[in-house]
Amino acid sequence: MSFLQQEIAEQPEVMSRLLHQEAENVRRIVNAIREFNPTFVSIAARGTSDNAARYAQYLLGIHARLAVALATPSIHTLYGSAPNLSRALVIGISQSGEAPDVAQVVKDARAQGALTLSITNYPDSLMAQAADFHLALHAGEEQSVAATKTYTAELVAIAMLVSELTNSAEMREGLSHIPALARQTVAYSESVMDWVERYRYIDQFVGIGRGYNYCTAIEVSLKVQELCTVPAHGYSEADFLHGPVAVVQPGFPVMVIAPTGRAAAPIHEFLARVRDRRAESLVISDDAEVLAGATKAMRLPANLPEWLSPIAAVIPGQVFAMGLAAAKGNPLDKPIGLTKVTRTR
Amino acid sequence: MSFLQQEIAEQPEVMSRLLHQEAENVRRIVNAIREFNPTFVSIAARGTSDNAARYAQYLLGIHARLAVALATPSIHTLYGSAPNLSRALVIGISQSGEAPDVAQVVKDARAQGALTLSITNYPDSLMAQAADFHLALHAGEEQSVAATKTYTAELVAIAMLVSELTNSAEMREGLSHIPALARQTVAYSESVMDWVERYRYIDQFVGIGRGYNYCTAIEVSLKVQELCTVPAHGYSEADFLHGPVAVVQPGFPVMVIAPTGRAAAPIHEFLARVRDRRAESLVISDDAEVLAGATKAMRLPANLPEWLSPIAAVIPGQVFAMGLAAAKGNPLDKPIGLTKVTRTR
Repeated sequence: MSFLQQEIAEQPEVMSRLLHQEAENVRRIVNAIREFNPTFVSIAARGTSDNAARYAQYLLGIHARLAVALATPSIHTLYGSAPNLSRALVIGISQSGEAPDVAQVVKDARAQGALTLSITNYPDSLMAQAADFHLALHAGEEQSVAATKTYTAELVAIAMLVSELTNSAEMREGLSHIPALARQTVAYSESVMDWVERYRYIDQFVGIGRGYNYCTAIEVSLKVQELCTVPAHGYSEADFLHGPVAVVQPGFPVMVIAPTGRAAAPIHEFLARVRDRRAESLVISDDAEVLAGATKAMRLPANLPEWLSPIAAVIPGQVFAMGLAAAKGNPLDKPIGLTKVTRTR
Repeated sequence: MSFLQQEIAEQPEVMSRLLHQEAENVRRIVNAIREFNPTFVSIAARGTSDNAARYAQYLLGIHARLAVALATPSIHTLYGSAPNLSRALVIGISQSGEAPDVAQVVKDARAQGALTLSITNYPDSLMAQAADFHLALHAGEEQSVAATKTYTAELVAIAMLVSELTNSAEMREGLSHIPALARQTVAYSESVMDWVERYRYIDQFVGIGRGYNYCTAIEVSLKVQELCTVPAHGYSEADFLHGPVAVVQPGFPVMVIAPTGRAAAPIHEFLARVRDRRAESLVISDDAEVLAGATKAMRLPANLPEWLSPIAAVIPGQVFAMGLAAAKGNPLDKPIGLTKVTRTR
């Protein structure tokens, strides 16, 4: 069995561990955030972790009313400058914690007096050492180059922070069920392997989401790109309609993240357009009616609150990318041309 | 002659007009910004205008030391919430000014007490009416669905704001030469038509930039996607190495934006990797040595300051997308499946 398959299956257990082992630390971090009272948030991250940052952008914006900027590390590293972050909460997110450019943003921000937090799988890493606070992912070593369990752990870490920050009993209660909901999703996702071979010869792929699940659309596309060497890209449904939709021809494979919730209405309209163009829709949803209209249905459990849905919704997408890579005979744990730790400057 | 071709050629003239007609208004806006003294900036935009927002992110971050968040309109429209923007300068950028979701961000921000500015081609538009200040693009009607002259006008408008905000004589002087430099670039770019047919059968395309020219990489890719119906995507060189690089196989067409400047070193290393993988490099640069190593060279004029280079560097990319669309027999002014004004919610 590949590490990738093991690590996908392990995700519910990682979530449980994280929820228990970091609860106290999250309270401590949130006390510091309350005391600091940031005017805005800046998040530095790359690749998969940048997709987790997008989840934070929606969660913090909607529930904590904090505007979130995604940092541009090259301003710090290549241009030797730094925006004024002294009133910001600055969060660095990285599996390894070893990307020097991401760590530089955290260092510069801390020197300016910002409140800094790192979220990584390694408490001894460059970035963990650079920040005032560290939130550990407790994911165990991730041996597959394509990140899966560290991604969902990053989402859970963010959800823990926001539940605590908003002091919402409802959010905390919802979050406590996420390992069980993820376990159910892993079980449902086995069926993806029954039909994934249909896509053996796709030469392009698009993932579409909106709101909370914008991150899911980008992350699933990144997995397809990394594991299957298929050009893939994720879009917000609204951005996609502002141009890229031009490429959708009959047969074009579009994965649509469509859980029940506030983003469902525009996503349903989008699905109707996809059908009009005779594209293939691969739909991730808990809504039986929406799934019935899909070329391929990827079921989510019932009673999944929309704000937590990205944590589960990415799982069938991970399984799809893994299954497609296997169907193509691609190596699963060490995709061609990639390394686990990418040190960009 | 297509509107697209005319509008690409018209860009230097639009820039001149904008520089003259909005100089006084820009001073007035900058006085208001100084008085307001924002803690950060939030920019709402979609599609091509979102790429202009990315330019602003670097320019404001490096020169005005302002952190820039790219707004997430769905927080305002679908989730009925709004981050606290009361200490922010909020800028809406849109060719038409008619996207309701983008206008909603500006409206919500203004109601909160933020300083709001719209940048559009239409002073009577929804968004222009919603903001405290309006900066008009003076581009004349853009008849081609694919935006070209309004994009470079948006970049010039942003460069005007930042030159004034930093009160830099050097930046103002540099900016005054941009219409002439753009004119020279339009002339150089004619040679693209001599070789563009080589790419008639590409089925994928990637644009790569870093720092200031991250926006150019995304914008050129969007033009290729819109006009040529080829799946195309733009990346920061650093983000690309964190995963997507997996798709680069021999013959893969990669357009690299490589002007002289601070971002040149990592971009040159990236070009070496592209060569190692026997991919095809289409290089936009003013550096003769870098161009000599390219599969196809797209020359920029000498003495183009790096911070202004995106305004010129996009032009050969626009011509490439137009030429490729023509080679494929695609309609130039009304790409399949797109409309000029996209009303997303």
